This record gives sequence, C-alpha cells and structure tokens, in this order.
Amino acid sequence: MEFDLIARIRDRAASRGDVVLGIGDDAALLQPPAGTLLVVAMDTLNSGVHFPPETAPADIGWKALAVNLSDLAAMGALPAWCTLSLSLPDADATFVDGFLDGFLALAAQHDVALVGGDTTRGPLSVCVTVHGLVEPGMAMCRDGARVGDDIWVSGSLGDAAGALAQWKSNGDVDAVLRARLDRPTPRVALGRALRGIASACIDVSDGLLADLGHVCRASGVGALVDVDALPASDALRATFDSEPRRQLQATGGDDYELCFSAPAAAQAAVLAGALQAGVAVTRIGRLDARGGVATLTSAGADWRAPTPGWQHFAA
Amino acid sequence: MEFDLIARIRDRAASRGDVVLGIGDDAALLQPPAGTLLVVAMDTLNSGVHFPPETAPADIGWKALAVNLSDLAAMGALPAWCTLSLSLPDADATFVDGFLDGFLALAAQHDVALVGGDTTRGPLSVCVTVHGLVEPGMAMCRDGARVGDDIWVSGSLGDAAGALAQWKSNGDVDAVLRARLDRPTPRVALGRALRGIASACIDVSDGLLADLGHVCRASGVGALVDVDALPASDALRATFDSEPRRQLQATGGDDYELCFSAPAAAQAAVLAGALQAGVAVTRIGRLDARGGVATLTSAGADWRAPTPGWQHFAA
Repeated sequence: MEFDLIARIRDRAASRGDVVLGIGDDAALLQPPAGTLLVVAMDTLNSGVHFPPETAPADIGWKALAVNLSDLAAMGALPAWCTLSLSLPDADATFVDGFLDGFLALAAQHDVALVGGDTTRGPLSVCVTVHGLVEPGMAMCRDGARVGDDIWVSGSLGDAAGALAQWKSNGDVDAVLRARLDRPTPRVALGRALRGIASACIDVSDGLLADLGHVCRASGVGALVDVDALPASDALRATFDSEPRRQLQATGGDDYELCFSAPAAAQAAVLAGALQAGVAVTRIGRLDARGGVATLTSAGADWRAPTPGWQHFAA
Repeated sequence: MEFDLIARIRDRAASRGDVVLGIGDDAALLQPPAGTLLVVAMDTLNSGVHFPPETAPADIGWKALAVNLSDLAAMGALPAWCTLSLSLPDADATFVDGFLDGFLALAAQHDVALVGGDTTRGPLSVCVTVHGLVEPGMAMCRDGARVGDDIWVSGSLGDAAGALAQWKSNGDVDAVLRARLDRPTPRVALGRALRGIASACIDVSDGLLADLGHVCRASGVGALVDVDALPASDALRATFDSEPRRQLQATGGDDYELCFSAPAAAQAAVLAGALQAGVAVTRIGRLDARGGVATLTSAGADWRAPTPGWQHFAA
C-alpha cells in the first residue's frame, strides 16, 4: 500500500528553496541557513486517545501539524520543514486525501514543506516531526522565568476542553468550541514577536496550571494566578456557567495558546508584540519565590495545590 | 503517564556537544555545522505489523533506531540526533527500560543523541526521526544510477526473511537469522565510505528486487541481477534449500543491507571502501538500458517481471 499513498502525498506536497531533496528517497536533504539553530519537535496523535475516532480526516491532518507548530511557536522558532508518519488500518486514499486537505492547508499558511516520512499499516495514528529555525540565544525556554515576572496567556482558554466536555456528555457541541478543539491555531507569529521579550514560554496543551507548573519547576519559581483574569471566549461564556467554566479555563487542555512570562518593565513590549502578531494577550498573574502554582479568585481563595494535567478523554 | 516516562528517558539519554537543548522543553535546539546538509528520515514500527507482539522490548528499541539509521546510511550521512515517539497501551516502566536498553545501545554505537519526542497512550507503536549530516553534493540518491554501472550489495541477503519464514511456520527460529531480523546492523560506515564512489544507493528494506526497482525507476535504467551471485550467510545456507533460499535472498525484506551502483571503473574503490568499513560487498549484476529489473540464474532464465515487495507478515 505504501507506494501509491506516498506518491499521492508527494504530488501534493509543496516545496521550498531550501529543500534540496524532498519526498521519495531514503531521506530528505535540507539546507539550514548558516548561523541559526535547528528547532525540532515531535508529537503523535492516536485515534481514540487524542481525537475521537469519528473526527473528520481534514481535522486530524490540521491538528497533527498544529500541535507540532505550537511547540515551535513556544520556542519562538520559524517553522521550515516537517515529516509525517501515517499509520492506517488500510490503504484508504479518501482518508489520505482528506487528511492532506487539512494538513497541507496549515502547512501552506506557515510555508512548511512536507519533506518525508512514511505510511504504514496499523491502528490510526499520526506522528509529525517539525523543524524550525531560531537565532542563537533567542529561543524561549521553560527555565528562563524569574521571580517578579508577569504571567501572560494568549487568546482564550478552555474552549477545546469545553467542546470535549460537551462531546463527552453526548450533547450538541458548540461549533465555535468544536473548531477550537479540531483546528487549533498555533501561535507562531506571537512566538516570533516575543523573542527577546518573554523570559519563558510554553504552549498550553495539558492545561494552563499544569503547563505553568512545568515552567515553574524548570525555572525554580512559583506562580500566583488570578483565575478571574483568565480570558474566556464569548462562546465559552455562553455555554458554561462560571464555575465549570473557570475549571475548564484553568485546567482544560488542547488550547495551544502560549503561556509566557516577562518582566513587568516589558509590558508595553509584550502588548506591542501581540498587536503585531494579531493575537490578544492577557496578564493573569505573577511569578513569586514560593513553590508551585497558586490560584487566586475574587472569593479570595489562595491555595497551592498539585496541578492536575489534562486527562486524555479515553482514560 | 507522560512525565514519569519522559524523565526516565531523559535521565538515560546521552548528549552531544552540538545539542544546545535536549529532552524536556517544547522542542530541542540543535546546532548544525556550517556548510553541511541536514539529512532527515522517519520510520514507524507498529506491533503486529513490523514486529511480532512478543518481540523483546530491547529488540524493538534497537530495530526502531536501526531502520532509521539505515536510511541515513543509504544517503551516506553521518548520524547526529534523533527523536522518539513511543505509544504504549499503559505506562509500563519495565517495557520502557528494556526498550531503552536496545535503543540507546545502538544510539551510543553511532554517537546519536536522543533529543526529544513524546510518549503517548495507544497501541504499541514506535516512531523515530533521525537527523544526519552530509557534505553538499555528496549524498547518494536513488536517481544517480547509470547504464553500465555495476550493482553491488553489502553483507548477506535473506536472513531476516528466513527468520520470519521460520517464525510463521511456528518452527524454531535459527538464532543467527533471528538476530538479523531483530537487531539489524545499519551499514553506516559503508555508506560513509561509498560517498563519491557509488552512483546510487538504497537500503534493502522491502526486498532486493523491489528496492533495486526503486533505484531503476528513479534513475531511468534497467537492471540485470545474477541471482546465483546474491550473498547468503552460512546460517541461511544451513537452514533453507537452494530454491526457497534464493527466493528469500531476492525478495525478502528487512535485511537493511545497502544495494548500490557504481561505475565499473570504481570496482577497486568500492572494495577498498568496504574493507575500510569492515563489511563484505558482492557484485550482483549490471545496470542496462532496458526497463525494470531482470534476473538471471545459472539455469539461464532471464525475465523482467514485476518485482513484488516485501509483504508485512500480518497481511
């Protein structure tokens, strides 16, 4: 089955000037520009674990690339190339065509060339490796956060988890929320704009508090988050009452927003960068010297709790 | 489950001087040397498709990296870094430890740093992306073969398929053959030695005739292969009669030997390169201007047949 599908993929994949050899040989040949670092991320989506089996092929394709580009965004990297390993129960050309519709649409948005990979028989699974570029010393890592820095988050939180909650309760899923779950927007432009401004950055895949916890552990700092300040979309506000909504915003995964820290003196620069990137950013708290991630609400509660990560929907 | 396993992997992964940031952030940061091309290959192994479910974890780990390094070998690339995506039905630390025993042993042999990836819940599946380096213009591609070139193959053919044949017939599997199936040797040193000598190269994963067919199609040439000249191991000779053995050698997959072409004038250089790499090479035929891959035996038969590729053992 492999060869027909590979030809199908190769015929549709766009190239770039720095791709010396793309799909069709034992390996791809790529020309990284001099003086840049290579940034590499790899993420797999398994059917029934990372997406419901009935997800449209185009949405699976989009999301498989999006979650990887989101990792590059969190580093401040400019995407360049990707490879794709697609495991399918059978050589289903219709599935592959639909999958490519979503995958290549997002690739085109970011000028990412699909340069290799494989197709194999197996339970439906998509593994993507993305390659980006960043100037030496300009990558945003998890360990750069400092006590006193502001904590920021892009866009809105909880939408994807809201869609999943609706889906699990077998109710109708709000279309806006569903789009956030199925077609997340990797914040690549924002990540680029934050180079040299943010002290640390991570993408929100496991849930805000869990992901912020990773930053705190890596940086040796604590965090105090104002849960009432967490940004919510109109769709989420219209769909969930305030308490379950706050839970979704604070702990729901799969939003692929950027959570980042920056010195208080950099507020204007952060806002200018966000404006340039066309993405809203919200200040949601401050880093402190205590351990862990604490949350604060208008009710005054302030606790340092273990921060549960996102549970995949098939436990 | 992810975080404990990732920590387990990170603690055991070796680094290299050109790894600016390894496992543990959103992405890895790597420093490619100036003036070289990046060579990228990605291959997935699914349980029950690419290996029997009862395969030892260490063998799965070894093979998952080996098949990828074999792709780099076929390009003449020097391996540098890899990423690993491991899907497991549950967070089985014993499996992961065994897996790493094999994976990291081979990585250490080739000074390959494991720099990232992910662990997810799902049916057992291993996806690896390898990154190598090669000088511009020195990569061996499939499209460089020329009419009149000799066809060569390294090592011996049919061993892995022989092991698989024994396994499928529920008989005892010869230990030597089994080792060739479970722990293939990527011919990295030979690939390096053949740069500037071989005109085209491919690794034998689908079967000699099928893989040589890929080279012929890409290069616009035909091939005449002397089946009686195909190298066989003592173990294969001791285990299979000549006719089934020749079938295994000509069409069996999973050997991960290199099949390459070189001008007749380069014979001495080929042999010197192989000697330097410590691998036997055998001249098995010649490229011609007719289409397809023809085979010749001492019985005089000469036919151009469609060249069936390797069938994965779970059809």
